[in-house]
Amino acid sequence: MSCGKFLKCSFCEEPVVTIVRYAKLRLCKKHFTEFIHRKVLKTIERYRLVERGCRILVAVSGGKDSTALLHILSALSKQLGFEVIALHIDLGIGEYSKKARVVVEKLCKDLGVPLVLLDLKEMIGAGITDLVAKSKRPACSLCGLVKRYLMNVTAFELKAHAIALGHHLDDLLPYIVKSFVLQNLSEIGKLGPKTESREVFIGRIRPLYEVSESETTLYAYFQSLPIVDESCPYTARKGSIEDEIRRFLNNVEVKRPGFKIAFARAVAKNMEFYKKGLMSGVSACNYCGMPALSNMCAFCKLTYRLLGKPMGPEIRDRIRKTLIELKLVAQQ
Amino acid sequence: MSCGKFLKCSFCEEPVVTIVRYAKLRLCKKHFTEFIHRKVLKTIERYRLVERGCRILVAVSGGKDSTALLHILSALSKQLGFEVIALHIDLGIGEYSKKARVVVEKLCKDLGVPLVLLDLKEMIGAGITDLVAKSKRPACSLCGLVKRYLMNVTAFELKAHAIALGHHLDDLLPYIVKSFVLQNLSEIGKLGPKTESREVFIGRIRPLYEVSESETTLYAYFQSLPIVDESCPYTARKGSIEDEIRRFLNNVEVKRPGFKIAFARAVAKNMEFYKKGLMSGVSACNYCGMPALSNMCAFCKLTYRLLGKPMGPEIRDRIRKTLIELKLVAQQ
Repeated sequence: MSCGKFLKCSFCEEPVVTIVRYAKLRLCKKHFTEFIHRKVLKTIERYRLVERGCRILVAVSGGKDSTALLHILSALSKQLGFEVIALHIDLGIGEYSKKARVVVEKLCKDLGVPLVLLDLKEMIGAGITDLVAKSKRPACSLCGLVKRYLMNVTAFELKAHAIALGHHLDDLLPYIVKSFVLQNLSEIGKLGPKTESREVFIGRIRPLYEVSESETTLYAYFQSLPIVDESCPYTARKGSIEDEIRRFLNNVEVKRPGFKIAFARAVAKNMEFYKKGLMSGVSACNYCGMPALSNMCAFCKLTYRLLGKPMGPEIRDRIRKTLIELKLVAQQ
Repeated sequence: MSCGKFLKCSFCEEPVVTIVRYAKLRLCKKHFTEFIHRKVLKTIERYRLVERGCRILVAVSGGKDSTALLHILSALSKQLGFEVIALHIDLGIGEYSKKARVVVEKLCKDLGVPLVLLDLKEMIGAGITDLVAKSKRPACSLCGLVKRYLMNVTAFELKAHAIALGHHLDDLLPYIVKSFVLQNLSEIGKLGPKTESREVFIGRIRPLYEVSESETTLYAYFQSLPIVDESCPYTARKGSIEDEIRRFLNNVEVKRPGFKIAFARAVAKNMEFYKKGLMSGVSACNYCGMPALSNMCAFCKLTYRLLGKPMGPEIRDRIRKTLIELKLVAQQ
């Protein structure tokens, strides 16, 4: 198929920048971008992730995946008629967080997307680094708890229809297989393309559900998106099971291109089955009113234990004020 | 831990023949045998596979796994007070079947276990080789159907409480993972240590559920059990997914000894969940009365299509007579 110096794109005369084996396509830069946009559009349609008129809060860390997600959703939002708002949390993890914040601010400015910027240290007087020092809990578990809480409060106060997360195929499948190997079946119920909103819990959507890691990387690269190159200093070394699962999935994909997407779709079809037992017994926190498994939510518990008082109510106030200042919600 | 020329057994002064990493044991021949017997005993207890007074039909092909199973169950039957009867089906696959038959006859004679020997060619006028020539169906699928039918009829006529199969950990786990990857969840419901009897369907038990392939191989070798060395000429070449799954499971086991057993136990705990939807809508065949998904069972359909008539009723009669001759059931 070579013609002179370079391979040609399947759709035009331009040189190929990537070969998408499972789709049997050779793509130039422009058609690769179109391919990814169309793919995410189809994912949104297939799993009914977004409807016209929806308000979607996109959680952006500054890494390649969530940055690519915001860029793609920003492009699709005009076509599909939904609203995109970005959320970035400055986690107070030294230089890493400073760089991430700068990068996300630039991205949102470039895209013209409103940004809700929450500074953890400013809000509760302690960043993740400070909390890690006070707690015995692993950094990533602690950080996850804080991020989930702040995302949920922001989405709730914004009356957002869903929180969009940058998890892609190669994040999700290994975790799905790991959950199967450990037979944590209800965990699989959280890993699909969509979880529904319920009262104070705002549902999540994963528009990159069928996009591979190499695709988000290429996308961010070709679009010259501003991203933090370095990874979080707390990034957990993946365990041996995860490594083996990843290798297994990649080996099968090489032999049978399209395997991973077919697997992800099959899991999504059985989501209702896995979701059984999820979110039952979830109520509202006595302090802040956000989702809780007992009478106090995990965030109020954590701040009570580490900082002396449940800080949920204060945080909700702060976030509400921020959103009013940004004119994203009306003053009551 | 070396002492002079050889490593010593964890329990005695004899030389080690195998190291069981997940149990942190070095075992001599005698203590390895005891280890396997105890392991199968515990499996029987853990999953309530057999009760005192039960009649168990053990399907023996002549290969190492089912041969080891019969040997182990024969030893445990005295201790636990259950009855063991062997079933061998001469499938009419040329030299392979001839050798298998000789080997199983010798084994049962040595063990003093009654053997029900069914000769497919004699019973329906065609062996697997003949059926394969007439059918478009893959040989292994056809053979599986025939074996399941003959096993079930024999167990039913014997009033057996269960059919014991020689499937071990390394047969079952890859198939469980493959079923997960294809999201055939109800298939997983058939792969546990036990399926219940229901009316004309006799339940299966898998006493080797937690025994690895290398353990059954060593067991057969150290006990000098008579086995057919060669594999069936139709043995399906495992597909690429199976190979990758096996490699993945073995790699994790090397890094985390005991992983496979823990995985198998976790799956067994969720069996009720996977079994939902299994065996619903199963009725009795209008011709032979055995389990069927419609008004005609798969065996009657097959023989009708390939040999001109549904042969289930004849086969049931033949088997009943064989069992009466063997004095395993009383004349009615």
